[in-house]
Amino acid sequence: MNFAEATAVWKLSGSAPGAGLFEGRVQPGWDIAGNANGGYLLSILGRAMTEALGRPDPVSLTAHFLAPGAPSDVTAAVTTIREGRRFATASATLSNERTLMAAIGTFGDLTQADGPTIHDGGPPELPPESECAAMIIGPEGGPPNFANKLRLRFHPDDIGFMRGEPSDTARLRGWISLKGDEPIDSIALLCIVDAAPPPVFNLNIPLGWVPTLELTAHIRAIPRPGPLRCEFRTRFVGSGFLEEDGLVWDSADQLVAQSRQLALVPRA
Amino acid sequence: MNFAEATAVWKLSGSAPGAGLFEGRVQPGWDIAGNANGGYLLSILGRAMTEALGRPDPVSLTAHFLAPGAPSDVTAAVTTIREGRRFATASATLSNERTLMAAIGTFGDLTQADGPTIHDGGPPELPPESECAAMIIGPEGGPPNFANKLRLRFHPDDIGFMRGEPSDTARLRGWISLKGDEPIDSIALLCIVDAAPPPVFNLNIPLGWVPTLELTAHIRAIPRPGPLRCEFRTRFVGSGFLEEDGLVWDSADQLVAQSRQLALVPRA
Repeated sequence: MNFAEATAVWKLSGSAPGAGLFEGRVQPGWDIAGNANGGYLLSILGRAMTEALGRPDPVSLTAHFLAPGAPSDVTAAVTTIREGRRFATASATLSNERTLMAAIGTFGDLTQADGPTIHDGGPPELPPESECAAMIIGPEGGPPNFANKLRLRFHPDDIGFMRGEPSDTARLRGWISLKGDEPIDSIALLCIVDAAPPPVFNLNIPLGWVPTLELTAHIRAIPRPGPLRCEFRTRFVGSGFLEEDGLVWDSADQLVAQSRQLALVPRA
Repeated sequence: MNFAEATAVWKLSGSAPGAGLFEGRVQPGWDIAGNANGGYLLSILGRAMTEALGRPDPVSLTAHFLAPGAPSDVTAAVTTIREGRRFATASATLSNERTLMAAIGTFGDLTQADGPTIHDGGPPELPPESECAAMIIGPEGGPPNFANKLRLRFHPDDIGFMRGEPSDTARLRGWISLKGDEPIDSIALLCIVDAAPPPVFNLNIPLGWVPTLELTAHIRAIPRPGPLRCEFRTRFVGSGFLEEDGLVWDSADQLVAQSRQLALVPRA
């Protein structure tokens, strides 16, 4: 089952106008210690939102994480808020017996996007994918199931925490792509921005669950074919909170996604 | 009329359980060329959300900007999604005859927040407030009305665009506070993160309306008394989109707010 199949949704008939009810399934194997990766859940919900709005791409999508998601059937309930010429906005929830996630997003068609490019910064410098490192640890000892669902290869300088030697820089750079060369669309980017371990694992902070309260993804462009170069950073830890910023670049050095999460600092 | 009065809301009786209906007013004078500042609108909506949820502080609040807001009576409709011990989450809309803004946010009590502080970066270096510059231009020639509602003083190196001499660095640093030493609470921070002109005015981009699609504010701590030091930056312009990142620091060098907007590049 590839990524597109693992995030598929089906529209339920009889939805009211301006609303869309979809069913999907949190598939087994996309989890970290039993709970589905948040970006994977957001891909299911984001796909339902694109289908409800008839717009192919999330432009800005924010989700608040309300409960962890084990494999189960899920319902995505989408409410249209505004339909404009270029963009449409909706709110949505993803639920099984509990509400797992609540979201709001503005969607459009990124193949129609154009304008000047001015970048202050570029993709991270990375060794070739073959010289980068796979995930070797997780909360259960070995790599989490989720790490086998994507192709994740991290810069050797950034994964010292896996050996008990954190780099002291809250940064994680790496190559990320889907397995089997499955094309990466804007929905897959919602998963990829949440695919790396928390960069704070490289600081002197207890390795533990770093619960995300909220994730916002800006999908900036449709990726060209090829593996993506990603950089995840945390700059500010304080008052029990931290942010995680992600930048995702395609093979043509195009910024394709920019993300930020607000998460809770793990407690010792 | 101070900031707290200009963003006041009143609960309408008879709201259903889990929902809250509030009335407020977009006051005259908080506008740029007739349209209320987005952060000011978000403060009205955020205040209604705090009251509906019984939690004093927005922790993470995202708004999608749907229509410009002229002075008018407005209704804030809040729907509670989840009430937990530490945090509560709600969605909300702000409307007059149109929906101006739709939001989702997680709220809590930041006086209860604590944890280690690790900062990679700090407040911007600024000359004393008396040597910084007020807004002198806006879309109507002189400074926008909004610029008179807060105390805004920008780094002289960053406001060359006001004289037709953009700095070529999409950064704007300055002191921001409320007028008359009104205390700055977490609701006022929602306005302050949107109070500066777009930093892209310092690039070779047409000076024009930079429409915000979405703004996310993370309120990271309650500010200590005194003016705030703020830094706004844009790093990536492309495909017709740009982000604006804000960092807001208090007199004790504490990061009190971190924000990001997704906006459209002005067209020539």
